Amino acid sequence: MTTRLKNFLRYSKPERLIVLGYSLIILLGFLLLCLPICHKQPVAALDNLFIATSALSTTGLATVSVADNYNFLGELVILLLIQLGGIGYMSIGSFIILGRKKRLSETGVRLIQFDFSLPDKYPVLHFVKDVIIFSIVIEVLGALGLYFIFLENGVDNALWSAIFHSISAFCTAGFSLFNNSFEGYYDNFYLNAVISALSFAGAVGFIVFSDYYEYLLKPGKKITYTSKIILRFTLIVFVVAGMILLVSDEGLHGYPTEDKILLAFFQSMTALTTVGFNSYPIGNLLPSSLFLLTIVMFFGASPSGTGGGLKSTTITALYAQMMATLKGKREVTFLHRIIPNHRVRLAASNFFFYSTVLTLGILALLLTEKPDAFSLLFEATSALGTVGISTGITGELSVLGKLIIVALMFFGRIGPLSLGVAIMANKEEEKEEIVEEDLAI
Amino acid sequence: MTTRLKNFLRYSKPERLIVLGYSLIILLGFLLLCLPICHKQPVAALDNLFIATSALSTTGLATVSVADNYNFLGELVILLLIQLGGIGYMSIGSFIILGRKKRLSETGVRLIQFDFSLPDKYPVLHFVKDVIIFSIVIEVLGALGLYFIFLENGVDNALWSAIFHSISAFCTAGFSLFNNSFEGYYDNFYLNAVISALSFAGAVGFIVFSDYYEYLLKPGKKITYTSKIILRFTLIVFVVAGMILLVSDEGLHGYPTEDKILLAFFQSMTALTTVGFNSYPIGNLLPSSLFLLTIVMFFGASPSGTGGGLKSTTITALYAQMMATLKGKREVTFLHRIIPNHRVRLAASNFFFYSTVLTLGILALLLTEKPDAFSLLFEATSALGTVGISTGITGELSVLGKLIIVALMFFGRIGPLSLGVAIMANKEEEKEEIVEEDLAI
Ligand SMILES: [K+]
Ligand SMILES: [K+]
Repeated sequence: MTTRLKNFLRYSKPERLIVLGYSLIILLGFLLLCLPICHKQPVAALDNLFIATSALSTTGLATVSVADNYNFLGELVILLLIQLGGIGYMSIGSFIILGRKKRLSETGVRLIQFDFSLPDKYPVLHFVKDVIIFSIVIEVLGALGLYFIFLENGVDNALWSAIFHSISAFCTAGFSLFNNSFEGYYDNFYLNAVISALSFAGAVGFIVFSDYYEYLLKPGKKITYTSKIILRFTLIVFVVAGMILLVSDEGLHGYPTEDKILLAFFQSMTALTTVGFNSYPIGNLLPSSLFLLTIVMFFGASPSGTGGGLKSTTITALYAQMMATLKGKREVTFLHRIIPNHRVRLAASNFFFYSTVLTLGILALLLTEKPDAFSLLFEATSALGTVGISTGITGELSVLGKLIIVALMFFGRIGPLSLGVAIMANKEEEKEEIVEEDLAI
Repeated sequence: MTTRLKNFLRYSKPERLIVLGYSLIILLGFLLLCLPICHKQPVAALDNLFIATSALSTTGLATVSVADNYNFLGELVILLLIQLGGIGYMSIGSFIILGRKKRLSETGVRLIQFDFSLPDKYPVLHFVKDVIIFSIVIEVLGALGLYFIFLENGVDNALWSAIFHSISAFCTAGFSLFNNSFEGYYDNFYLNAVISALSFAGAVGFIVFSDYYEYLLKPGKKITYTSKIILRFTLIVFVVAGMILLVSDEGLHGYPTEDKILLAFFQSMTALTTVGFNSYPIGNLLPSSLFLLTIVMFFGASPSGTGGGLKSTTITALYAQMMATLKGKREVTFLHRIIPNHRVRLAASNFFFYSTVLTLGILALLLTEKPDAFSLLFEATSALGTVGISTGITGELSVLGKLIIVALMFFGRIGPLSLGVAIMANKEEEKEEIVEEDLAI
């Protein structure tokens, strides 16, 4: 490595290095997917770019059918992109470096801490090892479970399909080799259970896993505050959204009760974990259900996980801040703990920036696209939240529309705020005397 | 006054007293509007409740035509409700008390300070006098201007129509005695100018007026920080939204250039000031234009004005906070001034609460109503922002739908956060040792 590159890596903001890293991987993936040896039939360059970005951002939106257009090699490239995007290329790289008994650079540690939004003083190296081992164990177990289910249902290439869907679920990517996702399995309890387990495992994030793993090894250890909040939030939103879907969507009323329950909660799960598989045609849901899923997709998964969205802890911090204001309290508290001011502020900035990016994305789509406004709103939220469910309009988008979705998915993977920091950083501020002044709100 | 009532008024939170006051006035207005002597033809009780709430909250949404259903007496009741809601019943009451040379109670001062979101150390009594005098002067000038315009256009009862529309515009109520609002005047430059001037005057708020008035009297005095932010924000959003409408809405392309400009900027003005008149059929706008107006309605007018919405200063504080986070700065600054932390926090809480109420309102409407989802989203934003433009679905709403809109308009007038405080206040907190703990965001 040249001294110049070393200095660049050492002194650049982590945000900028992360953006650069993911951009390079998307470029590489895009170029690979453009090779005719990856195709069953020719795929346009824009669609390859779309699929590469969708895979690395673990979104799962697709302008063309993956199964119909890419051969095994193409699917393998897509799966590698999903794995790199899901667990984070930095941790995979670090794991390899650590495995070769080399020391991890300071920059590497900083990037991982940043990429996983780890709390202060978190043991990063330990964490990375746990992350990789957990991921492999869970993905192997998931693939085993899916293998038997697919075998029983006579799926071609059951092993490859099992591996692909297991990784796609754990990384909350939601790419499927079936053209109608899991609609054919809507009443298969085992498939519902395995996919949901994998998706939740990815979505609650590695902090929770690491926590419970340590807890099992050393019974004296306590579950962290972050984990408690993540689990509560995930459980509550999953159950409430599922119940509302179950009760309110008339389209489900024709199904037997067990299937209705599976359908409602699978769709709640898919939006919340941001995995983005579906077992019911999303376009057939009522507008109220679509809007409910839009809210859940906006919330999204949890920090340090493979999912997207605004994140459970951000919503919780905002809720706690609102309650503090309502009660006229100075300290922002939740679950009998004070949330540090700088975290609350980060949550508020995140919320405002995320909403702004989403709003501008929707407006841009409305200006360029023909499909109905509500479907576009749904599509944009799904892209920014890296969810990947769609009412079915992805393929109909114009060139501009596809590029807008590509941008939203990329924003969604990096986290809009981080992307903003990457762009804003290094701008020198003029030094000046500055005073406080009251403002009417 | 009994001692008990006196103590209640003295020790209750201002939020609670404001909610109580406005509720009583709506109840009174509703009862008056139910009297057959107010009607040209029978009006259902629910519609009277809707109109009374819409008038006091200065929203202007209507389930029935005002001109076709209410006679002069009914219109007078509506106009009084508009005036009480627009300027605030507390200031009008205080002005009368002060005029009778009596002292204003401490509670009264607190309520006014609160109702107008005045900054700390603002001279409240002086302010109230200014407010009332300004309001009367502007409403009289507006009525004069409108009188000549209506006279020239052969409007029946031109004087009454001029008074009604002048007050309705300054109070950003948007109630009209014409069934198609100002669609018949879309190309009348003078009407566009007078209505826009009145609406902007109401929307920028009394802090700006008071500021410039003092500035003119004592040239040494400086324009306050709040006023500078309000004027900049208002100008920028008005121009940007107007330009986008002008360029992007194909429905306007058939009109001559001058009319196109008037149409685009009148519609931008009507959403931003939250007055809610329209000179173009809102339902004919493209979805992109409706969404743009939804954003502008969400922003809304300014604190201490007659308008609604989240407010210019709140958006500015959120933007400043986001920029501080992006640049990694501790202090939240804007226009070379530090915005106090408690104001930034208030803005963030407001944003989260407002978004939550709006989201729940939209979800509730989607669950109960038939019209298309995008129109319901527009309607809910219009109601909570007390704007009053509609794609034309207000009359088609179910009983539940009308009640949801009534609730949103009421929330919008009080300010959702204040309503929350009114409900939450007095809840005793358990005293306990509480410690800070880091949270991953
Ligand atoms: K996904
Ligand atoms: K209005």
